[in-house]
Amino acid sequence: MAKKQTSREKFRIPETEAQRKKRLETIDKIEQLAKEVVEDIKKDQAPYLTVPLRGKSNAYHHPETNIIMPGDKVIKRRYMNVSHTKKFAQMLAVAQACKDDLLRENLHATIRDLYYMLLNIKVPGQKEAIVNDQKESNVISEDLEVALGVLREDLNLQADKKGSVVGNVVIESQGDEINWSKLGSGGWAIPSITDDVHFKSIDADFVLYVEKNAVWERLHEDRIWKDMNCILIATQGQSTRGARRLLHRFSNEFKLPIYVFTDADPWGWYIYSVLKYGSYALPHTSEQLATPTANFVGLTLTDVVNYGLEDIALKQKPVDIARAKEMLSYPVFQSPRWQTELKMSINKGIKAELQSLAKKRLTFISEEYIPEKLEKRDFLD
Amino acid sequence: MAKKQTSREKFRIPETEAQRKKRLETIDKIEQLAKEVVEDIKKDQAPYLTVPLRGKSNAYHHPETNIIMPGDKVIKRRYMNVSHTKKFAQMLAVAQACKDDLLRENLHATIRDLYYMLLNIKVPGQKEAIVNDQKESNVISEDLEVALGVLREDLNLQADKKGSVVGNVVIESQGDEINWSKLGSGGWAIPSITDDVHFKSIDADFVLYVEKNAVWERLHEDRIWKDMNCILIATQGQSTRGARRLLHRFSNEFKLPIYVFTDADPWGWYIYSVLKYGSYALPHTSEQLATPTANFVGLTLTDVVNYGLEDIALKQKPVDIARAKEMLSYPVFQSPRWQTELKMSINKGIKAELQSLAKKRLTFISEEYIPEKLEKRDFLD
Repeated sequence: MAKKQTSREKFRIPETEAQRKKRLETIDKIEQLAKEVVEDIKKDQAPYLTVPLRGKSNAYHHPETNIIMPGDKVIKRRYMNVSHTKKFAQMLAVAQACKDDLLRENLHATIRDLYYMLLNIKVPGQKEAIVNDQKESNVISEDLEVALGVLREDLNLQADKKGSVVGNVVIESQGDEINWSKLGSGGWAIPSITDDVHFKSIDADFVLYVEKNAVWERLHEDRIWKDMNCILIATQGQSTRGARRLLHRFSNEFKLPIYVFTDADPWGWYIYSVLKYGSYALPHTSEQLATPTANFVGLTLTDVVNYGLEDIALKQKPVDIARAKEMLSYPVFQSPRWQTELKMSINKGIKAELQSLAKKRLTFISEEYIPEKLEKRDFLD
Repeated sequence: MAKKQTSREKFRIPETEAQRKKRLETIDKIEQLAKEVVEDIKKDQAPYLTVPLRGKSNAYHHPETNIIMPGDKVIKRRYMNVSHTKKFAQMLAVAQACKDDLLRENLHATIRDLYYMLLNIKVPGQKEAIVNDQKESNVISEDLEVALGVLREDLNLQADKKGSVVGNVVIESQGDEINWSKLGSGGWAIPSITDDVHFKSIDADFVLYVEKNAVWERLHEDRIWKDMNCILIATQGQSTRGARRLLHRFSNEFKLPIYVFTDADPWGWYIYSVLKYGSYALPHTSEQLATPTANFVGLTLTDVVNYGLEDIALKQKPVDIARAKEMLSYPVFQSPRWQTELKMSINKGIKAELQSLAKKRLTFISEEYIPEKLEKRDFLD
C-alpha cells in the first residue's frame, strides 16, 4: 500500500534556487564537520571540534564596521577530555538533528522543539542521556552556529514570531505575492525567519521601527507610512531576529535609512543599541543581524523636558537605575548626548513611555513629533 | 492661511455605513448619560450615574447560554456622596474623552493613551487632578462600558495587538481586500480591534486556535489549514480581544466549529475557558467575546500518558498546583474529564507543552495528533 501523502507533500512550499543552494551548503558544512571527526578516529587520533569562544571576553566594538564583532579566540572541544565529552556528543547530536530532521526535510523547528527532539536520547551502552536540559541544547546550537559560520536560521532553527509591518512594499514569500500597503488594519505578521522574503518592489524613503505594537497601531491609523512614504515596523519589546533581519536587509540591500523609536528608558535604548550594533552575547550574528546605519529618533528624556512632559513622567525603579549605570560604560553609549540621557535617567530618576506624547494630543506623535525629529535630523548616535 | 492637512485627512480610512451608525449611536449614548446629569442639576437634584456592579459577586455561569453572564446588581454613583464624587467626575471625564477625542474624530486609543490624555487634568478651582493613576482610568472605562451597555471597542478603546491568522478566507479591512491564504510564511497580523473586519468569503470547515505562535508556525509550515480546510489562528499566551472577537464571529455568523489547542497546564486550560465562557472579571463582555460552542482539543495530561510522553513532562511549580486547586471548584471545570485532568495535574505534579509532541516527530502534531483528535471528536467540555 502506498504511504499516505502528508499535507506537506501535498502542499509543498516552493523553495527558490538560492534557498535550496544555501540549504545544501549548510548540510555540506555539517557533513564536513562530521567527516573530520571520523577521519581523526580512523587515524587513531582523539577527535576534537573547534568552536569559537562566545561571550563578552571574545567580543569587541569594531570601530570601522561600527558593530560588535567576535574576537579570534577558539576552544578545542576534545572527545577524550572528560570535561568535554558530553558537550562533544551534544554538538554531534544537535548537528545531526539539524541536518537530518530539519535541513534534509526542509522543516523548521524552534530551539524548544530541538530540545524535545533530543531529550532522553542516549548513546548506545551509556546510562546518561545526551541532553537533559534546554539550556544545554541552546548553548550547543549557538556553538554549532559559530563553529559552522552560519546563522541559526541557516540551520532551520527559528526563534520568536512577533510584530507586524506595513508600507509601499511588494514581497514574495513562499510563492505568495503580498502587498504590504493593502493589509487593512492588521499588516503583515512578521514570521520568525525572514531570510526567504523576496522583495519585488519597494517604494519607501526610509524605515520607521517602533518598540511597541500600540504605537504601531497609532501611526498606522494616522497613515504615517503613506504620508511620509516609509515602511512602518514594530515588534513588542526586544526585537525579534525576523524583524532585525528585515531592517538589516532594508539597510544593506536597499540603502534605506532606518529610524528607531523606543520608550525613554534604559531598556528601550538598549533595544536600539542591539538593533544597531548587535550584542556582546552573540557577536557572530552582528554582520547579518545588526544595522549600523540605524539612527535613534526618540524618545529621550531631553524630549520629555522640552515637550513639557516631565510632570507626567514615570518614576524609575532601582532596577532601571542600575541598568542605566551599567550602560554608562558601554562603548556604544559613549557619545556626549547618550551620556547626558543616561545621567538624566539616573539623576532625575524618571522614564517616559512613547504613549505619554498622547498627553499633548493623540496624533501629536505622528503629526508633529516624528516629522519634526526627522526634519531636524535630531538623532542620537 | 489654510490649515495644513493632516495625513489622516489626506489618507482617510474608509468607514462603512454600519460602522458610522454604531459610532454615532455610541456618541448618542454618552450624550444621553450626560443629559441626565444636567437635567438633575437643573431640577436642583443631586445627580447620579447608574453603574452595573462588576466582578465575581455579580456574575454567574448561565446554564442556557453556557457563558458567564453579569447579574443585575447596580450601584448609584452619587455626586453628593463624598466617597463617590471623584469617581463620578472621572466617569464624566472618561466619557467626554471617548466622545470628543476618540469617537467624534474616529480615532482609536489604548487605555494607556487614555490615561495619559486625562492625567493631571483638574476641575477648575480644584487642587486635585481627576485622574492620578492608570488603575483609576482603567476601572472607570470598564464602568463606562457596562453603564452604556457597549464594549470598549465601541468606545474606540483598543487593547493588545498580537497574533496571526491564515486560511481560505477573504476579508475586507479598511478598504483593502485581503486573502488570508496568500500571505506567505507570515499570515495576517491580527489587529487589536476586529469588529470592522468584513468577511467576503470563507471556505473553511472549522477554526483551529492554538495558544502559541511557535505551534502556529509549525502547523502553517505543514499547511494543516490547506489539508484540513480550516482557519489557523494564534495569539501568544492569553488571547487578545481582537482574536476572541474573530472566534466569536466565526462561530456566531458562520456557524464554524472552534477547536482550541493549548499546553497541558492550568494556565493553558484557563485560556480555553475564557475563550469559551468568558470571565468572571468582565461578564458583561461574554455575549460578544465568548464562544460557548468552542471545544478543547488538547493538550491533556491523559494525552501525555497515552502518547508515552510522561518522562519528558515538566514539573509543576507550587504556583501551578495552587492554580489547578483553585480551578477544581470553577463551575466551568466540573465535568468528570476536566476534574480528572486537574487532579492529575495536582497529584502527578506535571505539566506539558504542545511542543513536547516534537519528541515523537516534529510533524507528529499536524500529521497524527490533531487529525486523530478531531476524527474521534475527542474533546473535553
